[in-house]
Amino acid sequence: MTSKQPTPRIRKSSEQVRSAVHQAVIDLLSDPQGADLTIPAIAQRAGVNHTSIYRRWGSREALLADVVVTRLERDWPLTDTGTLRGDLTAWAQAGVASIRTPEGRLLVRAVALSMPASAQAQGERAQHFERRIHAIERIRQRAAARGENPPPLEQILDQLIAPLYLRAIFGIDPPATGYPELLVNRLLNNPDESPTA
Amino acid sequence: MTSKQPTPRIRKSSEQVRSAVHQAVIDLLSDPQGADLTIPAIAQRAGVNHTSIYRRWGSREALLADVVVTRLERDWPLTDTGTLRGDLTAWAQAGVASIRTPEGRLLVRAVALSMPASAQAQGERAQHFERRIHAIERIRQRAAARGENPPPLEQILDQLIAPLYLRAIFGIDPPATGYPELLVNRLLNNPDESPTA
Repeated sequence: MTSKQPTPRIRKSSEQVRSAVHQAVIDLLSDPQGADLTIPAIAQRAGVNHTSIYRRWGSREALLADVVVTRLERDWPLTDTGTLRGDLTAWAQAGVASIRTPEGRLLVRAVALSMPASAQAQGERAQHFERRIHAIERIRQRAAARGENPPPLEQILDQLIAPLYLRAIFGIDPPATGYPELLVNRLLNNPDESPTA
Repeated sequence: MTSKQPTPRIRKSSEQVRSAVHQAVIDLLSDPQGADLTIPAIAQRAGVNHTSIYRRWGSREALLADVVVTRLERDWPLTDTGTLRGDLTAWAQAGVASIRTPEGRLLVRAVALSMPASAQAQGERAQHFERRIHAIERIRQRAAARGENPPPLEQILDQLIAPLYLRAIFGIDPPATGYPELLVNRLLNNPDESPTA
């Protein structure tokens, strides 16, 4: 499909490289044979030099994190509905819809694959995920500005995000109806008794 | 470290093959360079023929699932304390201790890596994880036999197991104290209002 040595026909723009590399990662993740997701394999598939990938992303983990966060921002947006309960429910609904799709499950797989094997990769990866964590933090800040009392960020991770990830990883379908609302009820109706979280 | 072509010195017993292959998976998972976890690489490291791996496990996903479940059964046991709360708390304590260790985090990474890329691999993997799910089901059945009213299995997955996995995947340390008890309180103190779960 792609040439091994991309001839320097027209030099790809920075945005074209990014787009081709992202698509190559998605394609390789989707390979039913379980293709190896190495930087040389990604570079070959994208038709770019592997040194461009190292230069731009630093590590495979950082690249995977960038792909995941970019897709999540598109497919699993954080909307402003006017209330904390509304924002969290809309977010959980998008999440449930996402993990019902093969690509949504692949993205969760990519999150796990992006787990850092080295301290350097850990730092590069963390930068990307911070974009996502900050988005959830914005929901909390909007709620606080309205006078609502949002749960701590870690409690939102534990009770709303974690169940969706686990189900995607284990292939356990969410209940057919009412699951986003159930998760939000568990989170908002029963504040933790101690300030441990 | 391992010879490329293991000479047929002494034929390995079935248990020796299993042990060598499991150790090779752990070693490759621990590689700070992020070694590729392919069956040929695992076979070479273990000093066994890669056909033995395919014959015994069927797929890379099934092998990873077997390694993970075997280690979890050892490091993260399900004990009988006499009460549902005691059993779940002991289980959560072992889980928190496990994800504080590098190997515990690697195992969670391996769970995600074992996500099936094909329907066949999905079935082979599911067989291994059923061992683990059945162990949690036994906790529920013991509780029911004592006259306790255990939450549904999926709620235990959502509220007790999922937060531990998410924290291992994202590298978010659990709170220093009281976290197992906090998770169990959330699970047992606030039964779901609707029978949706």
